[in-house]
Amino acid sequence: MMKMCMPGVAGIVAGFMGQRTAAVAIATAVVVGTVSPGLAFGPKVGTATLDNGMQVVVIPDHRAPVVTHMVWYRVGAADETPRKSGIAHFLEHLMFKGTKDVKPGEFSKIISRNGGNDNAFTSLDYTAYFQRVAKDRLPLVMKLEADRMTNLVLTDKEVLPERDVVLEERRSRTDNNPSARLNEQMNAAFYLSHPYGKPVIGWPNEIRALNRKDAFEFYRRYYAPNNAILIVAGDVTLEELMPLAQQHYGAIPAQPDFPERIRPQEPRHEAALRVTLKDPRVTSPILQRIYLAPSYATDQPGEAEALDVLAEILGGGTTSRLYDALVVKQKSAAAVGSYFSGDALDNGSLSVYAVASQGQDVTGLEAEMDAVIAKFLKDGVTAEELKRAKNSLIAEAVYAQDSQSRLARIYGVALTTGQTVQDVQQWPKRVEGVTAEKVLEVARKYFSIEQSVTGILLKREKQPASSGQKS
Amino acid sequence: MMKMCMPGVAGIVAGFMGQRTAAVAIATAVVVGTVSPGLAFGPKVGTATLDNGMQVVVIPDHRAPVVTHMVWYRVGAADETPRKSGIAHFLEHLMFKGTKDVKPGEFSKIISRNGGNDNAFTSLDYTAYFQRVAKDRLPLVMKLEADRMTNLVLTDKEVLPERDVVLEERRSRTDNNPSARLNEQMNAAFYLSHPYGKPVIGWPNEIRALNRKDAFEFYRRYYAPNNAILIVAGDVTLEELMPLAQQHYGAIPAQPDFPERIRPQEPRHEAALRVTLKDPRVTSPILQRIYLAPSYATDQPGEAEALDVLAEILGGGTTSRLYDALVVKQKSAAAVGSYFSGDALDNGSLSVYAVASQGQDVTGLEAEMDAVIAKFLKDGVTAEELKRAKNSLIAEAVYAQDSQSRLARIYGVALTTGQTVQDVQQWPKRVEGVTAEKVLEVARKYFSIEQSVTGILLKREKQPASSGQKS
Repeated sequence: MMKMCMPGVAGIVAGFMGQRTAAVAIATAVVVGTVSPGLAFGPKVGTATLDNGMQVVVIPDHRAPVVTHMVWYRVGAADETPRKSGIAHFLEHLMFKGTKDVKPGEFSKIISRNGGNDNAFTSLDYTAYFQRVAKDRLPLVMKLEADRMTNLVLTDKEVLPERDVVLEERRSRTDNNPSARLNEQMNAAFYLSHPYGKPVIGWPNEIRALNRKDAFEFYRRYYAPNNAILIVAGDVTLEELMPLAQQHYGAIPAQPDFPERIRPQEPRHEAALRVTLKDPRVTSPILQRIYLAPSYATDQPGEAEALDVLAEILGGGTTSRLYDALVVKQKSAAAVGSYFSGDALDNGSLSVYAVASQGQDVTGLEAEMDAVIAKFLKDGVTAEELKRAKNSLIAEAVYAQDSQSRLARIYGVALTTGQTVQDVQQWPKRVEGVTAEKVLEVARKYFSIEQSVTGILLKREKQPASSGQKS
Repeated sequence: MMKMCMPGVAGIVAGFMGQRTAAVAIATAVVVGTVSPGLAFGPKVGTATLDNGMQVVVIPDHRAPVVTHMVWYRVGAADETPRKSGIAHFLEHLMFKGTKDVKPGEFSKIISRNGGNDNAFTSLDYTAYFQRVAKDRLPLVMKLEADRMTNLVLTDKEVLPERDVVLEERRSRTDNNPSARLNEQMNAAFYLSHPYGKPVIGWPNEIRALNRKDAFEFYRRYYAPNNAILIVAGDVTLEELMPLAQQHYGAIPAQPDFPERIRPQEPRHEAALRVTLKDPRVTSPILQRIYLAPSYATDQPGEAEALDVLAEILGGGTTSRLYDALVVKQKSAAAVGSYFSGDALDNGSLSVYAVASQGQDVTGLEAEMDAVIAKFLKDGVTAEELKRAKNSLIAEAVYAQDSQSRLARIYGVALTTGQTVQDVQQWPKRVEGVTAEKVLEVARKYFSIEQSVTGILLKREKQPASSGQKS
C-alpha cells in the first residue's frame, strides 16, 4: 500500500510542526501546520449518535455533488501497550488488507474505480480513514468502511510483507531525514513518562516484532462503533445521512468494555534539556525549542487560545517578532517560526525554531532567540500585534472552510482529543476574546526553560579516525 | 516503618553511583559503589533448588554463629506496568504490614527481640528482604519470611498511611537533594523507551494514586517461590539448610504463570543529551556523564569485565587518570570518579563525574574531562595501569568476603540480573584476563557522545522578577 500516515516532519523549513500535529500528513495536500487548533463558526454542523454509541457529524457543503466521508477512531499511538509501539499505525495499514467480502488491496481500487480517492492517517491520539467520492457513491463507501470496522481478515501472508512496508516507510521518512530524527530523539528525551514521547510509527526494534496477533488484538479492542466518529462533509444533510449511517454502522454491536484512555502523565520537569544531533547531510544548523504546555483539553480556561495567539505573535509569518528580529534585522536566521500544538488529549506544547543563515552559529542564534523571548516577557504585546495575530488565526479558520477535507479533519481532531463540536464552533469567538494580559500571562507561565527541550541540528564534519568520543 | 530502600543517591561527593546501583542503599552500611559487579572465588558456595522452583544458595562462613538470611525476588521497578511506578517499592514497605499470624509492624520487632536486625531494598531489577540473626534463630526467620511470601494481609488502614511514608521518603531523599533530582531527570531523559528511565521510588503523581489493590495484585503476581531466591550466608551448610528450606518455603506452591521479564528495549540513541538543573543549595557545580553500555547479562563476551577495568583506570581512586589530571594537576576538580554499572538484566551504563573546584566553571571542567577521555582513546592504557586496576578490583572482591551481607548481596544481585553462581565465582579470573587491547576496544565502542547524557548541576542565582524565561 502506498498509504501515507506518518511522522510528517516534512522538513523544518517547509513548516515546523509540533510533535503531535507533526505525526499526521494527509495525501490530499493538507498542510498540517495550518490546520488550526479548533476552528470556526462555519456551516451548520449536524450531530447525532447511533444506538450503538457511534457519533455522527455532518458538515454541509452543497457547492458540488461530492462528499468527504471519514471514520475516526479514538485510539492512537499513545494508547499502545509497552513493547508494541507502532501497532496503531501498523493496523491502519492492515485495514486495507481485506475482509470476507473485499479482497486484499481491493478497497482502494473500488474507490478509485468509482472516481474517488481514499487514504488514512494515524497520530498519537487518533486514527482516521477517509474517502472523497461523488455524492451518489456515499452508500458504497459507508458499506465498505462499516465492513472493515468489524470484518477485517488478517493472514500472515498479508501482514508480514506489510511490516516490511512500514519499516521502509520509517527508513525513508525518519531515518533518512536528519530533522525528523532530531524531532524523534527530542520527543523521546523530553517526555519523561508520557507515551507522547514515542514515535507514532514505532521504534524499529519494536516494529520488527509486531505480528498478526498484536494487530488483531488491537483491532478487536479499539475498533468498534462506540469508539468511532463518522464525519461526512459535503453535499448531504443529517436527514439524508442518518438512515444510511443506521443501515451500515448501526448494525455493528457496541463493544461493552473499553479500556480507559488514561495514559501515564508527565512528572514535573525540573531540568533544561538539550539534544544535539549531527548529520553530514545538514546544510544549515537548526535550533528548535519545545516547551511543555497544556492542550485545549487540559488547559485552564482561556489558556490554549492565548497560547495560539502567543505563537502567532512570536513566530507566525513575516510580521512576527522572531522574523523581524532574526531574519530581517540581524539576518542571523533564514527562517523562523513558532507553533502551539494544542490538539491533544493530554498536554500540548509550544515550539519555536530558527534555521541559521549562512555562516551563523547556533550559539549566537539561540542568544538572539532568547533575547526576543525575554523582551516579550518583559514588555508584553502591543494592541496592534494582538489584533493582527487574532485576525490571522481567524482568517486561517475561515479559509479552512473552503476545503471539505480540512473542515472534516478539524472536527475529527477536536472530537478525538477531548473537545466538542461546540468548542470548535466557538473557537473564533474565544480567540477574539484573548487579551494582551492573558497572552503575557501564559507566556510567563509556559516559557520556562526547565520545562523545555532544546534541539540542535548540526552538520557532522569529518573527524579524525581515533577520536570516537567527540562526534 | 523506617525501612530504607530507596534511591540512595547519597550525594555525589560521598560516592557517585550509577543509576541502577544508585537505586539501592542498605541500612547495614553497605557502600553501594564498592559492591563490585560479580565477585570472587570466595568460599564454597552451595546451591540447590526446591521442588517448587525456589533457588537456594548457601555461602558458608563459620567464623561466628550468625547467619544472614535473604530472600530475593526477581522483580523490581522495571517490571511495573504503566502508571504504577513505585509499586514494587511500595509493596516492599507493605511487606512489613503483617499476615494472619503476625500483626502489623511485628515482623521487625520479633527479629529485634531475638537479637537480630532486618531490612529490605528495592531496585529496578530486584527486591530483597534480609535478616541477620544468631544461627539458632534461623528457623524463626525462615518461618516469618515464608509466611509473608504467601500470607500477606493488606488493609487500607495500613496501606494508606504507608503511602504517605513513601511520599515523605521521596521528598527527603530525592526532592530535597539536588543531585538526586538531577540524576532522576537525567535517567528519565536518557532512557528513550526502557523502564530503567523511571525512578525506583516512583513518580510522585503516580505514587499518590497507588492503592491496596495495586499492591496486592503485584504481590500475587510476583511473590512466589519460583520467582524467589533464598540466600543464606554464615554459619550453616547446605545439608543443614535444605530441610529447613523445604519445611518453610517448600510448602508454598509455585505460581504457574509468570509474566515474562521482557521490557521495552532502548531504540538507537542518535543525539547527545544535556540536562541542566539549577538549585540554590548547590555549592559546587557538578558534571556527570552517563554512556549507554551493555551489562554483564547482555554484553559480548569479555566486554563487561573490560568496562569495569576501564572505569577503574579512568576514575577509580587517586591514581586514576581523571584524578591525576583534574584534581592533582589542573586543580579544576575537587572530586572525580568513574563507574561501570554492569549488574542489570538489560543494559548497563558507564559513568564519569567531576565536582568543580572553587571558582571553576563547568565548561572548562568538561573540556578537561573530554581531553582525558580523548587521550585515553588515542593512546590506550599502560601495562602498569592495567595491572593496578585489576588488582584493585580483585582486592575489592576479596574484601567483600569479609562481610556476610555484602557477599550474600553480590550473589543476590547477580542471580536476579541474569548471571549465575558460576559467573560470580569466575569473575576475578575473567578480570585477570582483561587485556589492554580489550579495554581500549570497549572504550572506543562505548564512549560515544551520541549514546550519552551529560548532567550539569549549577547553583541557581537570584533572578530578576520579570525574566521567567532564563532560569
